[in-house]
Order: sequence, then C-alpha cells, then structure tokens
Amino acid sequence: MRVEFINPFLMSMMNVMSTMAMIELKPSKPQKKEGLVAVGDVSGLIGMVAPQIKGSLSVTFDKQLALSVMQNMLGESPSEINEEVADMVGEITNMVAGGAKRLLGESGFEFDMATPVVVSGSGHTINHQVDGELILIPFSSDQGNASIEFCFDK
Amino acid sequence: MRVEFINPFLMSMMNVMSTMAMIELKPSKPQKKEGLVAVGDVSGLIGMVAPQIKGSLSVTFDKQLALSVMQNMLGESPSEINEEVADMVGEITNMVAGGAKRLLGESGFEFDMATPVVVSGSGHTINHQVDGELILIPFSSDQGNASIEFCFDK
Repeated sequence: MRVEFINPFLMSMMNVMSTMAMIELKPSKPQKKEGLVAVGDVSGLIGMVAPQIKGSLSVTFDKQLALSVMQNMLGESPSEINEEVADMVGEITNMVAGGAKRLLGESGFEFDMATPVVVSGSGHTINHQVDGELILIPFSSDQGNASIEFCFDK
Repeated sequence: MRVEFINPFLMSMMNVMSTMAMIELKPSKPQKKEGLVAVGDVSGLIGMVAPQIKGSLSVTFDKQLALSVMQNMLGESPSEINEEVADMVGEITNMVAGGAKRLLGESGFEFDMATPVVVSGSGHTINHQVDGELILIPFSSDQGNASIEFCFDK
C-alpha cells in the first residue's frame, strides 16, 4: 500500500462533504487493516484503474449521516435509505474518487474510474479483494459517522 | 444498453460456475431494469473500463448457493458467509468479468478490470449508478439461486 495515497482520499472526502453537504467531518487516524472492515448502512463502491496500479474505493455512511446529507444537499427528508439516498451516495462516491484522481494525477497516477455501485442493507460488510493492504479512514461528525476504505494491488 | 453484451456475461457466468464449482446454472430471460434490483446474501462487484465505455458488473448469490460453491470448489463447509466465502465470491466475480472481457475483446471492446469488492449482509440491495439501462440475468440451480447485473454508460 502506498501511504502517499492516504492524503488525496482523505482530503477529497472532507472537501466533498464540506462543499456539497456542508458537513465538517473529523478524520480519525488512518488504519491499515486486512479482511472485513466497514460496517455501515449504505456504501458506494467504485473501481479505479491506472496503467501501473488498480484498486477500489468504498465510501460508507451510517443511516443518520446519509439522511443528514440528503437534507443538506437536496432539502429532502426521507426516513429510510431509499433509491434517492442511494443515488446521492453514488454521486458522493464519484466525487470523492474524482477529487482523489485529480490529486493522484499530480503524482503521475492517471486513473480511469469505473462507475459507482451503491449497496444498501443494515449492517452490511465490505471486503476489498486485493492482495495489497487496505487503508480504512473513519470520520465522525455531529450528524453521524462515515468511513472510507481503499485498497490497491501494489 | 448494448444487447450484444448479454451473451458474453451470461456465457461467462455459466462457464465459470460449471468448470470451477461443477454447478450447472439455468438462466432465466435477461431483463432490462431500472433502480434497485438484486437482493442477495453475498455479492461481488467489479468495475470495467474500456476506452469507449465503462460500467460495472455484480454477481449475487443466495447463501445456500454460496455455501454449495464453497463445498464444491474448496471442500469446505462453513455454515455462514465468512471471509473465505467472501474471497471465493470475489474470485468468481473476477473470473466472470475476465471471461466476458475476453469475449467482448473479440467485438473490439478492450476492457480494463478494476479489483473486485465483496459485500455481505442478509438481504442487501445493489444499485448500479449508471445512466444506461441495467441488465439483470437470474440463474437457478438445484443448489440455490444467483444473478448477475451489469450496466454500462452507453
């Protein structure tokens, strides 16, 4: 795992949440982990491919934070994680990956992004299938918790 | 959505399950769908990027079939979806995407594949975030049910 990837993803997540949802996330210390990690209520997943490296990013929200983002971004107040919430999480995931892609491009990694997929289900777990080390960054806020995980094959 | 993509994914899924897990899947009619679709117990997701098109594939198993594949491929009989089952689903997803990639290459689509991510959680739902139409193909077998979904942006 390349530790120089941590900052681009961390900064991009905080920027997107701050500018799009007006929510200030507090990051906890990034952790290297193996195996099953994120447990959340709704997650966006996106594949990233560069000529020299490939991997995946997941952005996981608890229900409380996902619904707050919905309120702040779109002025909607659903009581459950519905299709509109899933679409919003997919869009956030795309923007976080896009922001990281721009920052990583400055280091010579020209990533293509796949399309995001959103998974909903109370207490689901996510398992990145890459031999490389997984980096987990937990975030907290007044409105709930989120985390990002990413894993690359070199 | 390009209907010519249906056969490569359908054939690849059946081939992989037949050769790797000795399970003969019966496909149902491919369906064009929008919105939330697959409901399953464990799913592998993988992004696919070609110069002219990008998208994502998901392979979803019910618990019964996932555990049967585990038995047939690895001779292991876990009673729950554990990390080894998740790894196996990630490997199957990689192989299904790889088989489809080869077939699609013959039609001039040179896909790069991202790395797979596996989601576990009873009754989770998957939402492909692409403007293009989603194709769902359900499969049944004596040992349980599976489905694949794929969605591309053109």
